[in-house]
Amino acid sequence: MTEKFSLFHKGLYTDLYELSMAQGYYLNHLHDHKAWFDYFFRRMPCGSGYVIFAGLADLVRALENFRYADEDLNYLSGQGFRKEFLDYLKNFRFTGELIAPREGEVVFNNEPLVTVHASIIEAQLIESLLLNYLNFQSLVATRAARIEHVLRPGQTFMDFGLRRAQGWASYMAARAAVIGGASATSHTDAGRLYGLRVSGTMAHSWVQTFDDELEAFRRYARVYPDRAVLLVDTYDTLRSGVPNAITVAKELEARGHRLQAIRIDSGDMAYLSREARRMLDEAGLDYVKIISSNSLDEFIIRSLNQQGAALDGFGVGTRLVTSYQCPALDGVYKLSVFDGQPRLKISEDVAKISLPGSKKLYRIYDDRGLFYRDAIILDDEKIHKVERIFHPDYEFKNTPIAGLRAEPLRHAVMRDGRLCVDLETDPYRISEYRRERMRHIPPETLRFENPHIYKVGVSRKLFDLRRELIRRHSSF
Amino acid sequence: MTEKFSLFHKGLYTDLYELSMAQGYYLNHLHDHKAWFDYFFRRMPCGSGYVIFAGLADLVRALENFRYADEDLNYLSGQGFRKEFLDYLKNFRFTGELIAPREGEVVFNNEPLVTVHASIIEAQLIESLLLNYLNFQSLVATRAARIEHVLRPGQTFMDFGLRRAQGWASYMAARAAVIGGASATSHTDAGRLYGLRVSGTMAHSWVQTFDDELEAFRRYARVYPDRAVLLVDTYDTLRSGVPNAITVAKELEARGHRLQAIRIDSGDMAYLSREARRMLDEAGLDYVKIISSNSLDEFIIRSLNQQGAALDGFGVGTRLVTSYQCPALDGVYKLSVFDGQPRLKISEDVAKISLPGSKKLYRIYDDRGLFYRDAIILDDEKIHKVERIFHPDYEFKNTPIAGLRAEPLRHAVMRDGRLCVDLETDPYRISEYRRERMRHIPPETLRFENPHIYKVGVSRKLFDLRRELIRRHSSF
Repeated sequence: MTEKFSLFHKGLYTDLYELSMAQGYYLNHLHDHKAWFDYFFRRMPCGSGYVIFAGLADLVRALENFRYADEDLNYLSGQGFRKEFLDYLKNFRFTGELIAPREGEVVFNNEPLVTVHASIIEAQLIESLLLNYLNFQSLVATRAARIEHVLRPGQTFMDFGLRRAQGWASYMAARAAVIGGASATSHTDAGRLYGLRVSGTMAHSWVQTFDDELEAFRRYARVYPDRAVLLVDTYDTLRSGVPNAITVAKELEARGHRLQAIRIDSGDMAYLSREARRMLDEAGLDYVKIISSNSLDEFIIRSLNQQGAALDGFGVGTRLVTSYQCPALDGVYKLSVFDGQPRLKISEDVAKISLPGSKKLYRIYDDRGLFYRDAIILDDEKIHKVERIFHPDYEFKNTPIAGLRAEPLRHAVMRDGRLCVDLETDPYRISEYRRERMRHIPPETLRFENPHIYKVGVSRKLFDLRRELIRRHSSF
Repeated sequence: MTEKFSLFHKGLYTDLYELSMAQGYYLNHLHDHKAWFDYFFRRMPCGSGYVIFAGLADLVRALENFRYADEDLNYLSGQGFRKEFLDYLKNFRFTGELIAPREGEVVFNNEPLVTVHASIIEAQLIESLLLNYLNFQSLVATRAARIEHVLRPGQTFMDFGLRRAQGWASYMAARAAVIGGASATSHTDAGRLYGLRVSGTMAHSWVQTFDDELEAFRRYARVYPDRAVLLVDTYDTLRSGVPNAITVAKELEARGHRLQAIRIDSGDMAYLSREARRMLDEAGLDYVKIISSNSLDEFIIRSLNQQGAALDGFGVGTRLVTSYQCPALDGVYKLSVFDGQPRLKISEDVAKISLPGSKKLYRIYDDRGLFYRDAIILDDEKIHKVERIFHPDYEFKNTPIAGLRAEPLRHAVMRDGRLCVDLETDPYRISEYRRERMRHIPPETLRFENPHIYKVGVSRKLFDLRRELIRRHSSF
């Protein structure tokens, strides 16, 4: 698997300032000092009540292979980096600890998702890559999970986004879509790389190359007698496409085969699909499925289902793979401990002040077995001793958690730069885990319109530590 | 250069349906029949009055290397493709013609930008890759060009987007940003791959690792005495960051060096930058530049400049590299000729009906030397014989172009699958061409709010051909 990723699993996949700082740490003899960095995001994307954590397996693979090749060092030399630092980079590898939730976990804003514990120079050099991988895959997995959430029993959706994806983002987008619930992707090479099911049949151009649509359908069905999906909207869906598809389906039946589906790519999907369903059923073709694929997302699919559209599958493209309405997750990576001392980032914007110290993250369940609160406590605390959790900014906002079931949400995934768990890398199995976890999201947090804000609180001890550090730095 | 791209310059970078159709063409003995496909987009992104065409050099490089390796064929065999088709793919290469504008050209919606003339199977297999490369790079280059448009003399902007870019899209985003006018990128490996200037100094974490900010600045300036950019907003921009930066700048002066700049990453940029400028100037540090970097795009930068912000440079991230407000260009690729016969795609949506036939694209200038109209005519027409151009849907909307200067906008870039021009690949030289071309955009088309819609018309002969084909297909 490693060589397939050779372009991107490398030490230059980083913002130059990470290298500038790394050289600064090195020349200041600080490079072996230990740091803790937390990855978290601040705002829920698209107003979602939850986020699906994704990108972990790719990140781990990248960290295992994070190296500086000779050509990279030559390049950096040309950029003015010094020989002694480049000599150091020659043998560089990530030897730190990586603490993270399982991929596919349901997570929320302002909680430390991934923590990196490593020398300051290692932790710094991997920052850009970590953010780049996790932000994007978590975003797309979340949108896909929202699509799955509005499907009716028996409905499926596929990633059709390669053509509108943001360039090479197409690979990770396909993977994250499957983690979020897509059954397959149209992207052949992403399928090969990540072991995803691939799917896809015909475009309008197939129909156009023949003198008439019926001939185009017949020629296609001859090659794919048992898995043809006929695109019926090239000329006129109900007056030409569906009748021609029915003709070909009956011809296939006569030869012992079955037309798999028709696909509609334009027009009023609710109306057209119902009419097409009626026509197919009247022709005794109730087994022929109907697939739709035109600017779909969770909102449109929900609306189509509410209108009683007769659709069995959805090809979802642009709006999923670019997360059209919210194309970036605002994840950040902040220093929380350096040399054993808790560190804080102050900001003009109070909401941007970080959480200091090395921390643990717990999920608290209510008595129905649903997710109730997430609790962030300091490493030297025990969750069962924590009576109450607090809003990090407002002391009066607090809630008791004593006696409730608590589950650690994160585990060490890498130690000494090596994988130390049996990491799940199969996107379909990650998706199964996600599906199981989503059953525990309270219904009011699942909804799209003004979802109930899931509360993430801190222990009294962490609250006090943060307040003390804010006071210290604000005394200028 | 080729091996660096090995992952993505390959025949599997395609939607599966292209391969399904390709096998269909092959088994129907149609694979040698010649086709013409046009690439065009339908809607201007973000309401822009123009688009910058980008991605061509990457596309050409990908087409030159579009191959099926043994592992790819094995993969396809496992997906059920037939041996005779896979044998055909073994020796597959793109041997067709590629007609395109120069990279960096100013272009508009609904005009054929790239035309592929090749066997149907070749033209079909490259579709997804072509769309994926051109849609994204044109989108980002356009957003970058709009940023450049609102800069004041002496101001520059850089791509800082790696951490929020859509995964591996980060590479193409950096390249396209430079085509659109960015002076540099923070993305080290994109810099190496594409020959972009790279830039970047310190993050908040540098400041946080030291016990106080002044010490952090001093330690940094010791390593980079002539190119330090100090981040001044970790604790308090005006009460701590700027005064400490001034102290260090004076210490640098005493040793014969100069602080390059300060960077502000949060807070009210208009106010903070003016105050910081005043403080720096009063300290005799008028040469120290001020750089800003917080959720910037062309709208925010224009607003900051209107407010008299004292900013010399902008680090633009998320909103540029994801094209936040419009994260996809809706480019499509439609069959226009097959086997010598003009072809049309009808649609329920009239605006989606394509332009049939093999065509030429001309830019018409007005007597001020500004872009006036674009004219699409049939290949067998001569532009100087075309008196008038027409809206493709409305005959009564037409305008005379006789006597006006006309310039062909596209040229053959590849013939017989080989590069046949001296293709410009340097993003900075492409950017110079773009800048020169943008001087000819009418001012009312350059503006952001309801820009004047630039007219693209067709010749009478093309108008009639299209109408005739619509009639023929609509007679069901």
